[in-house]
Amino acid sequence: MLEDVIKDKCGVFGIWGVENASQYAYLALHNLQHRGQEHCGIVSKSPRTFYRYYGEGIVQDAFSKKILEKLRGNAALGHVRYRTEGSSNIKNAQPIYADTKNGKVAIAHNGEFANWKRAREKVKELGHIFQTNSDTEIVLANFAFAPKESIEEIIRYSFRKIKPSYSIGILTENELIGIRDPRGVRPLVIGKLGNAYAIASETCAFDIIGAKYIDEVKRGEMVTINDAGLKRIQLSPPEKERLACIFEHVYIAMPNSFSFGSKYTNSVIRKEFGKQLAREHPADADVVVPVSDSGNSAALGYSEESKIPFDFGLTRSHYIGRTFIEPTQQLRDAKVKKKHSVDKSVVEEKRIVLVDDSIVRGTTSKKLIQIIRDAGAKEIHVRISSPPYKYGCYLGVDTHDKKKLIAYTQEDNEKIKKFINADSLGYLSLEGMLKNEFLSKEGFCTHCFDGIKKISRR
Amino acid sequence: MLEDVIKDKCGVFGIWGVENASQYAYLALHNLQHRGQEHCGIVSKSPRTFYRYYGEGIVQDAFSKKILEKLRGNAALGHVRYRTEGSSNIKNAQPIYADTKNGKVAIAHNGEFANWKRAREKVKELGHIFQTNSDTEIVLANFAFAPKESIEEIIRYSFRKIKPSYSIGILTENELIGIRDPRGVRPLVIGKLGNAYAIASETCAFDIIGAKYIDEVKRGEMVTINDAGLKRIQLSPPEKERLACIFEHVYIAMPNSFSFGSKYTNSVIRKEFGKQLAREHPADADVVVPVSDSGNSAALGYSEESKIPFDFGLTRSHYIGRTFIEPTQQLRDAKVKKKHSVDKSVVEEKRIVLVDDSIVRGTTSKKLIQIIRDAGAKEIHVRISSPPYKYGCYLGVDTHDKKKLIAYTQEDNEKIKKFINADSLGYLSLEGMLKNEFLSKEGFCTHCFDGIKKISRR
Amino acid sequence: MLEDVIKDKCGVFGIWGVENASQYAYLALHNLQHRGQEHCGIVSKSPRTFYRYYGEGIVQDAFSKKILEKLRGNAALGHVRYRTEGSSNIKNAQPIYADTKNGKVAIAHNGEFANWKRAREKVKELGHIFQTNSDTEIVLANFAFAPKESIEEIIRYSFRKIKPSYSIGILTENELIGIRDPRGVRPLVIGKLGNAYAIASETCAFDIIGAKYIDEVKRGEMVTINDAGLKRIQLSPPEKERLACIFEHVYIAMPNSFSFGSKYTNSVIRKEFGKQLAREHPADADVVVPVSDSGNSAALGYSEESKIPFDFGLTRSHYIGRTFIEPTQQLRDAKVKKKHSVDKSVVEEKRIVLVDDSIVRGTTSKKLIQIIRDAGAKEIHVRISSPPYKYGCYLGVDTHDKKKLIAYTQEDNEKIKKFINADSLGYLSLEGMLKNEFLSKEGFCTHCFDGIKKISRR
Amino acid sequence: MLEDVIKDKCGVFGIWGVENASQYAYLALHNLQHRGQEHCGIVSKSPRTFYRYYGEGIVQDAFSKKILEKLRGNAALGHVRYRTEGSSNIKNAQPIYADTKNGKVAIAHNGEFANWKRAREKVKELGHIFQTNSDTEIVLANFAFAPKESIEEIIRYSFRKIKPSYSIGILTENELIGIRDPRGVRPLVIGKLGNAYAIASETCAFDIIGAKYIDEVKRGEMVTINDAGLKRIQLSPPEKERLACIFEHVYIAMPNSFSFGSKYTNSVIRKEFGKQLAREHPADADVVVPVSDSGNSAALGYSEESKIPFDFGLTRSHYIGRTFIEPTQQLRDAKVKKKHSVDKSVVEEKRIVLVDDSIVRGTTSKKLIQIIRDAGAKEIHVRISSPPYKYGCYLGVDTHDKKKLIAYTQEDNEKIKKFINADSLGYLSLEGMLKNEFLSKEGFCTHCFDGIKKISRR
Repeated sequence: MLEDVIKDKCGVFGIWGVENASQYAYLALHNLQHRGQEHCGIVSKSPRTFYRYYGEGIVQDAFSKKILEKLRGNAALGHVRYRTEGSSNIKNAQPIYADTKNGKVAIAHNGEFANWKRAREKVKELGHIFQTNSDTEIVLANFAFAPKESIEEIIRYSFRKIKPSYSIGILTENELIGIRDPRGVRPLVIGKLGNAYAIASETCAFDIIGAKYIDEVKRGEMVTINDAGLKRIQLSPPEKERLACIFEHVYIAMPNSFSFGSKYTNSVIRKEFGKQLAREHPADADVVVPVSDSGNSAALGYSEESKIPFDFGLTRSHYIGRTFIEPTQQLRDAKVKKKHSVDKSVVEEKRIVLVDDSIVRGTTSKKLIQIIRDAGAKEIHVRISSPPYKYGCYLGVDTHDKKKLIAYTQEDNEKIKKFINADSLGYLSLEGMLKNEFLSKEGFCTHCFDGIKKISRR
Repeated sequence: MLEDVIKDKCGVFGIWGVENASQYAYLALHNLQHRGQEHCGIVSKSPRTFYRYYGEGIVQDAFSKKILEKLRGNAALGHVRYRTEGSSNIKNAQPIYADTKNGKVAIAHNGEFANWKRAREKVKELGHIFQTNSDTEIVLANFAFAPKESIEEIIRYSFRKIKPSYSIGILTENELIGIRDPRGVRPLVIGKLGNAYAIASETCAFDIIGAKYIDEVKRGEMVTINDAGLKRIQLSPPEKERLACIFEHVYIAMPNSFSFGSKYTNSVIRKEFGKQLAREHPADADVVVPVSDSGNSAALGYSEESKIPFDFGLTRSHYIGRTFIEPTQQLRDAKVKKKHSVDKSVVEEKRIVLVDDSIVRGTTSKKLIQIIRDAGAKEIHVRISSPPYKYGCYLGVDTHDKKKLIAYTQEDNEKIKKFINADSLGYLSLEGMLKNEFLSKEGFCTHCFDGIKKISRR
Repeated sequence: MLEDVIKDKCGVFGIWGVENASQYAYLALHNLQHRGQEHCGIVSKSPRTFYRYYGEGIVQDAFSKKILEKLRGNAALGHVRYRTEGSSNIKNAQPIYADTKNGKVAIAHNGEFANWKRAREKVKELGHIFQTNSDTEIVLANFAFAPKESIEEIIRYSFRKIKPSYSIGILTENELIGIRDPRGVRPLVIGKLGNAYAIASETCAFDIIGAKYIDEVKRGEMVTINDAGLKRIQLSPPEKERLACIFEHVYIAMPNSFSFGSKYTNSVIRKEFGKQLAREHPADADVVVPVSDSGNSAALGYSEESKIPFDFGLTRSHYIGRTFIEPTQQLRDAKVKKKHSVDKSVVEEKRIVLVDDSIVRGTTSKKLIQIIRDAGAKEIHVRISSPPYKYGCYLGVDTHDKKKLIAYTQEDNEKIKKFINADSLGYLSLEGMLKNEFLSKEGFCTHCFDGIKKISRR
Repeated sequence: MLEDVIKDKCGVFGIWGVENASQYAYLALHNLQHRGQEHCGIVSKSPRTFYRYYGEGIVQDAFSKKILEKLRGNAALGHVRYRTEGSSNIKNAQPIYADTKNGKVAIAHNGEFANWKRAREKVKELGHIFQTNSDTEIVLANFAFAPKESIEEIIRYSFRKIKPSYSIGILTENELIGIRDPRGVRPLVIGKLGNAYAIASETCAFDIIGAKYIDEVKRGEMVTINDAGLKRIQLSPPEKERLACIFEHVYIAMPNSFSFGSKYTNSVIRKEFGKQLAREHPADADVVVPVSDSGNSAALGYSEESKIPFDFGLTRSHYIGRTFIEPTQQLRDAKVKKKHSVDKSVVEEKRIVLVDDSIVRGTTSKKLIQIIRDAGAKEIHVRISSPPYKYGCYLGVDTHDKKKLIAYTQEDNEKIKKFINADSLGYLSLEGMLKNEFLSKEGFCTHCFDGIKKISRR
């Protein structure tokens, strides 16, 4: 994934029952940082008070010791998010906090309500004001309009007309709540740390704080965490068909995270994608080179299956600063090169299999192929460990504009191959992808590849 | 005013009908900076889109050229605010923007609704969620709950149960609106620039952009500005008694601003306060020294009336940075000295009349008097150009906690004199203050001095 | 002084014999901040080690608590400096530190060696390398080339071929040294704090740390401070004629500093300049208005002598941030207005005497006069409390380029008057300036006014 | 390499003959960033003027567009450096610039003069003052003391008593010079870009600007670059025995750089180290896991030779911010985990071969092994692709303090194994390392492994 285009919407983490809970959130958000680097926020709660802080950029830059110390209490909810065009406004940072007739509440959301336009208009009609650009506020509006009953009933009311996708953490005055939509589109997992419980978008968030991954939040489930421990309620019956986002397995989630109930980390799944890719699109070549780091696991799999040796032909810089000064015309490919360096000894005079997880716009691929060619590669056979990324996402990954997707704008793969100037190009087939034995068998959303929308936008 | 305690809540500025409107807002907010230094924000509007940006600190540090350029359009609304304890959160920054059933809207508020607690509960009951700590949101809630009618009716509905104080700027999709409460507590003025109109908390905001001050927004009035020009509507009949904040004249507003319809700038009014102070509390002294810059005008007046020469015995530093490192114990009065320096030649062997506009906690006064004494002053006669600041404010100036006010905690002025270690202490009387010929005759709120609340908090 | 052009080169402070000496330097430099805002630096010394830190901007922004804590030891030397064109390089920051055959040493300089070009070439010939653009390094070079003898002899050697001006602080392994040139051009004073001693460019630096001003460093004197106390040596016989910089009295030094042995602070001297100005250039006017804050004292004097009332017609902003965004064409006078605001009630329909200490380029004066006129002033009579600033300085104030000085480029005062668009213009005469009774009688350099160079540049 | 301890001293880059030369330096330094992240600097030269700028942190954060534009001219010299304890002072930033009798000059150094103590004292005796802590200044001192002759003679004089190691770039008024010591300890290479030439510490610096690597600067050679092109002079006869730093091949240099004349990039050499390691220390294991990214190539080699599959068991975070907040006691291994995450599916129930290039203190290794064990690894066999790092470096890599090296403090490898809690531990033998066929045959310094000093420190 040439990661300047597709970015997952968010990462969520919540914990209840540890001293200095905000410190746990800080660390966990660091391990979820790949899910969003524009804004981050933490809301913490002492018995009586909510504290909150929001910053720009990555967690390690936005939070200071002083700020963390002010975020007191034994419960915390955190969020990272990425930039959507035209809305780089810190008021959109999450967790969104609100003081409502049903109590104080903070909410952190990963996903996108398929029917958000309609749902937004409806709560606007009821008098809700949207202070953020986020559909997340719809839930808060419902929360506030709900009759004063048990928290379970309030939550049920809040989500009754909301269509997936959503994986949401809610911090109320009395509990931490995790909710996942009945289709299970976006991930949400439960961890345990001593007597405390936590929820997170990915299991890697638990690793850094020493918590143990115990289960997914189930489809349509609401988990409630407070001093009494963990309570699990099936809020709505799970839909027959799960629609877990296959792209989490392909690219979004960390390789060492367990996603969607698979017993295997994503790296294992991705390696198998690579093996299948090798079966479907063999190549007569000398070396398998991953686009680091997104193509690493698939490339290993391709190599294992094809018996073509794996090697690091591209090195990724560790030193990316806040701003990169656009160089003059003569230096125009510096922008790609500042991130990726070619290893001449690995590629020179070689026939390369270049493995990546996907191609989005194609422009970066084109440049990358050029600099590998400049380093002396004889042939470059591009292999992509997922089908053509053609239709973008309507459920929470920011690629609404299909017209920017090369697989959408180009007639066929031959045209894409020409555009990026590869010697050959092979994509993993949709069937090949889905028969991966390490995937859970419960069903996936594959809209970005096949364009089929199974959730109504109304 | 030893200005680390009393701070006015906010400054508001709006303009409609100029290219690069956000640049005008930027400059105007700079000239309103004394009304709040914690957060600042600008919302601008092109024909179809609202843009917004919020920053910490002063306007010149928070905004960059790049940001201003992104705040496109011919209309803009801006706001500066100060810190209230425990709520230093950028989500509280204004103008608050909302997308509502009655359209998109941004609102910037100066003041405090006397009945905000009750009003807040009421709209919460209706389902409104408070995302900020500000009472301003109540208006937005009402705006959204209002029946869809003309903007005039929506505004009327929004304010129908709101008690003063408020001076508010509202930017909607079709107009810029300025509203002032029927008591006229906080200021709001109208300016003209070519064919465009602007509103601001003070006339000094017009000076920097070259606009002409044409009138106050009247009590209970709503002014509507759009491409058709300026329209003025009496939204609610003005209350018989105006309750303009006398403390704006005393301290808050810039000396060169015209406040509350007076034909004279505040410096003229303050000078007259000083004259009356000289009449009420003469002193046998050698030199009149202002606490710069807050006591400047009153000190000039005192000098003119008493014939005691005026001189600058205290110099104020121009170089106050972002953070001041607390010095070690031996250097403990450095904190006062970093801002104020004494001129020995002016005070040595002299009997000083030290003039300031008010005493709040008394701790800074005490230190200041000590450093003047250390410089050799023989006697220090403190003269305050307003009555004892005893009851704080319930209408928008942040001194709710009376217990921090020395005039409240000390039995009488003699005790205050002793605490600050002055040779004598004289406050301007309430009557003396109000008979100032340069004041408009329409009535003032003097609660901070006499404790009388004329607006119900229910 | 419209202070964007003439800026004094530097401020110096040193102290020996207090715990946390760097904290004292930090505070003292804050009070010397008007002498330079580009770079600042502190070198401290524990028994065996030198510590140093340099930063950009003002002291309060450049130093943090953490940094001050690392600057350990009981002795410290600090420096502030301003920008010279084309050399905004942090390597030029002072105190310059060096490890030499004659020991470790740090040096902080205020002044400019009249013969620096020649002197620089000479030590370059000996093999010295200039790592800064500063002439200060010449002394360090000499220090290192000096035979190993007593520190007195080394210092004597170091300065033997250096022509004024210089006021220098030197921190060696064994003492803190203060040196002033035999002409006494730039200031340097001695303070006492308990058993410790300090040196500084101005007495105001002592005020903030609670030290007592005890004397000037005499012309040609070297004062040595260490644990044994203060030792004073006449390093070179003082020249017959002192050449103290009269411009320190006029503008550079703080109003509350005692400069050049006068028993009166500069505010007293400046007030007398104002009185004499009133005698030489009376005006038929209604009010005397200072350009704040540089014209304050002179305006008071003018008022006192002329019996025309003094008033604040211009207000200076306290909120100047790091960067000011250049506004669009329509807002082009915003740059002056962001600093100075006019008080309409003070100036409208009035004949104004506008008092300032000097006019440099004239461009800001012109704009300032225009905004006062726009506010309704009937007549503006500009009075300058020093002679025409015509020749700049060759001894340490950055105005080498005469061609930028309006008094140099314009034929006569009539032309200047027309350029700035004043109704009349009067400068204090050189004779009038020098007969000021509060000045020490020992002689001044008046080169910037009369062009006479009494120190050879060879 | 757990890279928080051993860091190479510096990276150097120079170019002559391109417009906007400073932009090339900016990009090249980015690709040399692994050689130093504390300070960076660029000196550029237009026909008549030198420009310079120094900043803290990484190049992308320290330089802005504005700054680069001010660094005008067709020639530039740049430098990155790392922190040495106690000297984090920006005055130590390089290239050091000086104005000398032999002209203006800037110098950028990688290496450490073995005899720097003595050499430093000598030039101090001659009168040189050391303004930095760097031994580099010795060369500048010599440059300035040299008789005025041809640049070749001046350079010859400057280095005549300097003992290796040094690889130095010098920018004078008339040329860019690259010099390498007669032992060839540290690297320096020559590149060509159109008609222009460049020098750099590593070939990867050329890749990003599109330059072609043409040769090493030879041992004892001086290359001179100006508008006339490239001139190469043997400044001193090369010593019989080359002493190239073997640790550049092991860890310091980028995997895709060509070092010390090898025709193969370091990744190829490192892979061969891994193969030999597998031969010397086979393991009965299931998977070979690199410590990413330092162990990547060696791990690939180990896998290839041993036929044990390679896999990514550790993932390295891309999001390391400026400061990491030390977590509370309960979270104490978070510091390792914020950088490295384990992939449970890869390591659980597996016997792991964990490959890294070296062990320095051992503390990070110990923690890393623990978190892999916590993830369920059955056995962990540590394999290090170089001999025990026992004696540190006296020629320019910052590990002077042997007492911090676990291989030095522990009696034998068994003790190290116990300390880090590995199941087995194997180091590549010195002989095994040196017989690597991809290494140039000309001789290496292996002092850090065997403690043999071949260059006198006197």
